[in-house]
Amino acid sequence: MVTYEEALELLRTGVPALASRTVPLAGAAGAVTAAAIPARLSVPGFANAAMDGYAVVAAATATASPQTPVRFSVAGLIPAGSGAPPVPEPATRDQVAWEILTGAPVPSGMDAVVPLERVTRVEAPGGPCIVQLTVPLRTGQNVRQAGEDFVAGRRVVETGTRLGPHHLMGLSACGIDEVRVWTSPRVVVLTTGNELASEGADLPTGTIRDANGPYLRALLPLVGARLTAVAQAGDDVQELRERLARLAAGADVVLTTGGVSAGRLDLLPSVVREMGGKIVFHKVAIRPGKPVLYARLPGGAQLFGLPGNPLAVAVGMRFFVLPALRALQGLPAEEAEMALTVEPVRGRGTLRFFAKARVDTDPAGIRRVRILPGQESFRIAPLLKANCWAIVPPGVDEIPAGSPLETLPLYPDDSTTL
Amino acid sequence: MVTYEEALELLRTGVPALASRTVPLAGAAGAVTAAAIPARLSVPGFANAAMDGYAVVAAATATASPQTPVRFSVAGLIPAGSGAPPVPEPATRDQVAWEILTGAPVPSGMDAVVPLERVTRVEAPGGPCIVQLTVPLRTGQNVRQAGEDFVAGRRVVETGTRLGPHHLMGLSACGIDEVRVWTSPRVVVLTTGNELASEGADLPTGTIRDANGPYLRALLPLVGARLTAVAQAGDDVQELRERLARLAAGADVVLTTGGVSAGRLDLLPSVVREMGGKIVFHKVAIRPGKPVLYARLPGGAQLFGLPGNPLAVAVGMRFFVLPALRALQGLPAEEAEMALTVEPVRGRGTLRFFAKARVDTDPAGIRRVRILPGQESFRIAPLLKANCWAIVPPGVDEIPAGSPLETLPLYPDDSTTL
Repeated sequence: MVTYEEALELLRTGVPALASRTVPLAGAAGAVTAAAIPARLSVPGFANAAMDGYAVVAAATATASPQTPVRFSVAGLIPAGSGAPPVPEPATRDQVAWEILTGAPVPSGMDAVVPLERVTRVEAPGGPCIVQLTVPLRTGQNVRQAGEDFVAGRRVVETGTRLGPHHLMGLSACGIDEVRVWTSPRVVVLTTGNELASEGADLPTGTIRDANGPYLRALLPLVGARLTAVAQAGDDVQELRERLARLAAGADVVLTTGGVSAGRLDLLPSVVREMGGKIVFHKVAIRPGKPVLYARLPGGAQLFGLPGNPLAVAVGMRFFVLPALRALQGLPAEEAEMALTVEPVRGRGTLRFFAKARVDTDPAGIRRVRILPGQESFRIAPLLKANCWAIVPPGVDEIPAGSPLETLPLYPDDSTTL
Repeated sequence: MVTYEEALELLRTGVPALASRTVPLAGAAGAVTAAAIPARLSVPGFANAAMDGYAVVAAATATASPQTPVRFSVAGLIPAGSGAPPVPEPATRDQVAWEILTGAPVPSGMDAVVPLERVTRVEAPGGPCIVQLTVPLRTGQNVRQAGEDFVAGRRVVETGTRLGPHHLMGLSACGIDEVRVWTSPRVVVLTTGNELASEGADLPTGTIRDANGPYLRALLPLVGARLTAVAQAGDDVQELRERLARLAAGADVVLTTGGVSAGRLDLLPSVVREMGGKIVFHKVAIRPGKPVLYARLPGGAQLFGLPGNPLAVAVGMRFFVLPALRALQGLPAEEAEMALTVEPVRGRGTLRFFAKARVDTDPAGIRRVRILPGQESFRIAPLLKANCWAIVPPGVDEIPAGSPLETLPLYPDDSTTL
């Protein structure tokens, strides 16, 4: 039996990186970047108006006051998207204003925009319009300068970033059309046990519905994995061996449920060894899910043998498989968030205890966590009331109310779909 | 101009509910339940062993001690999934033990399981095996009772629940094969502006890349919407009118970006009116995104006219469109979470200020929020460093460091995919 920290260390060591590939940006939401991405364009690409108004030379407004308004004749209108900005004559630049709409390029040599509602506009019949200002403008006022948001050549997104909608916004703005991302891990699932029924409510005595298969099928796409095959096997060495060999070919990660304890029908460890797999650890000092097994198969796939109890599967996924999938995708390890216990919490002796829990933030910004009743590994109902996992370290007898405890959300914060 | 609270209230009033439909459970991850779902099966369905061991009658172990061990002859083995459990003879039930594996049904009349490692097993050549106990068992010890987790007929999941992997786990266990869920809203997107280019980095002067379209395309599937059409239009009444009419047919929600301020080329309000749309509000006392427009179109679609600045789009989505999409899907309103400000925060006068921000939980479980530099509505780069929105209420001049402030995550916690 190893500790959880030892198990995590063993998981992270010696796993080959997956391949990376270039994909169109439009299809990259949810993928993880395999390289930092520099901007191709500076953003803004050119000095432009931050609001609708009039572009002028700021220095020409220095003497503006209600008593001594400064007047400009309006040279024309610059809408956004109308091509290159006008180039006013340097000699008369100080005497003209260009009406300008938000986002439109500021004429060359001009350096401030006065908002529409801050000028008086006088239509002069037969002559040019006049606008008059009663307040001086600062240089750059209401002008967005080129490169203020992004600078061409500088990094927009770091490597190891799971691309969310806002990253696509930034990358699009910077002229990016394709990105290099990690191939998503191919995962296969084998649920085992003679007692499993996959549908219906009219079950033969002694059988139960398989709750683990549907859970895994829904979870894997949320954490960036591609579920490439699902199968079920009874408690039979021959069947297990055949199914496993077939599934493992072409998989990066093999997940099994059941058959991994020390009982008479816990056939997985010997089948893994027969296949030439190397068992890296079997049994970890945790509750629930202690019998978890981790092996490397000859073809290079990682195998996680999760115990069959639903909560052992949920804990095995959250605390072993998800960290491994993150590492495969080049994502950093998640960090636990602290919360204060609402009630005293009993430890589980030498075992690290992953508890179904509920965390809420109080009006003073303090996260408060409650361990839910019903922590046995067969009980799913409390998980449906939970919004996080609380992590009670080994070697503590009782943690008093008001103590800090580590928590992780039910699913990683960057859970999304590829 | 209305306040944000008034706008939210107007959004939620008089919107017809979408249709619901029945879908297979396996395809229901990410959908929102349109009815509470009762269990079809009790879980466990039968009393079963919580671990590998021997099933006995607890009362028969009452006198067990190291000095006076109690002996049972082993009647046989019960694996999980092997059919109905044996029915021991009542007369001799107290003298036998059934070897039993985790999850297997406990023989009728027996009521406790002693773990394997707590008995001494004596193989008697020629006769039945004997196990001996040195500690009494409690009634029910290591037995999972029928219905301890779920009871047939009682609710497993409430209405208005976005189904995550753990819900599918619970529903499968309870014998559910299909669920009634809300149809996901059909959303169409129209980005407008002569200045928009949709690809490449070699842009004509005065044009910019459309960052809003890619953002909306990536975001909508994460929040349960079906993006059914995307189009782009220039600043032209005719084009806008035609595109909008075509898109709106068959949509539940129409999103537009740009053309919604009071400038010369802000054509949306008049086009909406021409189409027979009723403008419910136009301009809300917020920053950024103040010019946001909300209308109901003749066909029943809701239209959100978002200003064209990327941050106005992000705020418009997060604080107007997402609440509307949640309401359409029967989801409850999100609740903001408090965090303490790290530095003093300047208010925005009469406007509610939605700020790009970063929240981190300290070792004492206190959430601490920092407003990021660069809050102008054209700046995307700070959003790429943000992990939440901080909400600064109107009418505050400066909030001192250490004050509680409302925050919402960049995307709702239950963001997922259909």
